[in-house]
Amino acid sequence: MTELQAIDYIRRRAAGSAAKGLILGIGDDCAILRPRAGEDLLFTTDQMVEDVHFRQSTHPPEAVGHKALARGLSDIAAMGGEPRFCLVSLAGPLTEDWLEGFYDGLLALAHRTHTALAGGDLARSALFTCDIVVCGAVSKGTALRRDGARPGDLLYVSGRLGGSALGLQTRTGAAWRRHLRPEPRLALGDAVRKLGATAAIDLSDGLSIDLHRLCAASMVGAKLDRDPPLFPGATLDQALHGGEDYELLFTLPPNVKPPRGVTRIGRIVEGEARGPLPLRGYDHFRTS
Amino acid sequence: MTELQAIDYIRRRAAGSAAKGLILGIGDDCAILRPRAGEDLLFTTDQMVEDVHFRQSTHPPEAVGHKALARGLSDIAAMGGEPRFCLVSLAGPLTEDWLEGFYDGLLALAHRTHTALAGGDLARSALFTCDIVVCGAVSKGTALRRDGARPGDLLYVSGRLGGSALGLQTRTGAAWRRHLRPEPRLALGDAVRKLGATAAIDLSDGLSIDLHRLCAASMVGAKLDRDPPLFPGATLDQALHGGEDYELLFTLPPNVKPPRGVTRIGRIVEGEARGPLPLRGYDHFRTS
Repeated sequence: MTELQAIDYIRRRAAGSAAKGLILGIGDDCAILRPRAGEDLLFTTDQMVEDVHFRQSTHPPEAVGHKALARGLSDIAAMGGEPRFCLVSLAGPLTEDWLEGFYDGLLALAHRTHTALAGGDLARSALFTCDIVVCGAVSKGTALRRDGARPGDLLYVSGRLGGSALGLQTRTGAAWRRHLRPEPRLALGDAVRKLGATAAIDLSDGLSIDLHRLCAASMVGAKLDRDPPLFPGATLDQALHGGEDYELLFTLPPNVKPPRGVTRIGRIVEGEARGPLPLRGYDHFRTS
Repeated sequence: MTELQAIDYIRRRAAGSAAKGLILGIGDDCAILRPRAGEDLLFTTDQMVEDVHFRQSTHPPEAVGHKALARGLSDIAAMGGEPRFCLVSLAGPLTEDWLEGFYDGLLALAHRTHTALAGGDLARSALFTCDIVVCGAVSKGTALRRDGARPGDLLYVSGRLGGSALGLQTRTGAAWRRHLRPEPRLALGDAVRKLGATAAIDLSDGLSIDLHRLCAASMVGAKLDRDPPLFPGATLDQALHGGEDYELLFTLPPNVKPPRGVTRIGRIVEGEARGPLPLRGYDHFRTS
């Protein structure tokens, strides 16, 4: 498979992958987007690195493709955005079979979420790495940020936590499926943005570290008054410090009725711009 | 260095890195851009992979940082665009010294070209990889594409070719500097777009393969009537088939006077949608 053949293959797979305003997709020096009036654009980028984020021996290429895009979509969800398109850079010992599986997983999620595949880059390498950029859109001035939480706001989390960490440990059942194929909470992000959420973040590195990030950005503290709901079989430790659940953590003013399926776990207080939990979430750069 | 410390370091280095319309840069789930009316946005992504695009033993981190951004800016130049911001994903055995050198090189070029560093992603890995996304802007409907060349148009190339391939061979002098620190032709891309160029592409993989891509996209052929100018010391083979010169190849209608510093090397003819040279440019996926 030559590079031209690989690009042709991907272009065929991406055909019909239209997005609002996407004038030109795969096949030129750049993709071209014509922005719509009254919208802000959101951009996020996330890597999947072999032997760091996944292993060839345990993670099928479909799951790698799904998760690579899901991680980016989760960031769009955390800002209350609607996805538009993605760019996919791949390096690795790429074979036709592997590419087919990877794009099966990625494009199934892309089509379901109306995310166009607009371009990317390919390189051969000894180690597989993937980097995905997702562009989303949101009504002008309404993006949910991390820095808007205020003392008195109530703190909510969606879903049940710890499933991904449990799945990584057991490699079986619903928890393993949660680890392999997380579901970005796009509808919920849009809903809480419209309800007037003051801040939001997705749980990629663990509740402890992601709550710390929200508090640090908003220059507030937080008080937890109950444990988060546990994924069936998960420990409290996995729920508090396990990463990759891709649920949403957000704050609402106390007078706002929350949407269904979320749990109030605490509230925002005046404080020292840090989270209330010890930082044991996943840190790529921890040296100890 | 923890991940939080690394992100803080990069955020400090990126401080003051503003771009038109960039409302939020590093530090949240997404960067936020407010598009300007009357503009189309351009997006390109390029990888730099250790032992594929560079070697730690020969390429200083400053050069890797410069070149990683220069490759993306060159794609923006090839569409006639003005750069706005970049996102930088890094994986590798990253140390503080390496990060400092990398961002020295990247940010020097970013500041000179008014490209904001708006976000990215970090991961530890055994192998160094970098993926950069550059967003640029261009007046609505005026982006230079590969598919607009028409029979009768004249074919031009900027600069002198083969320097990067020569430098990779000799690792000395001006050719090695050309290889390590290519200069994206942003002013030229903007100028030929305004002159009414019909198609353009940047020479990343070699004149032979990049001319083929332009012809294939435009469904035309090309006839060369002189050799391209050679970088001092480079062979014709290096000029025709060596990649990474990052000069521009473009077509102008015959009545348009070209800008200075470019050379007419041929013309567009009716033909079979392929280039006139054997395809020996760099192909990451060539298996032979």
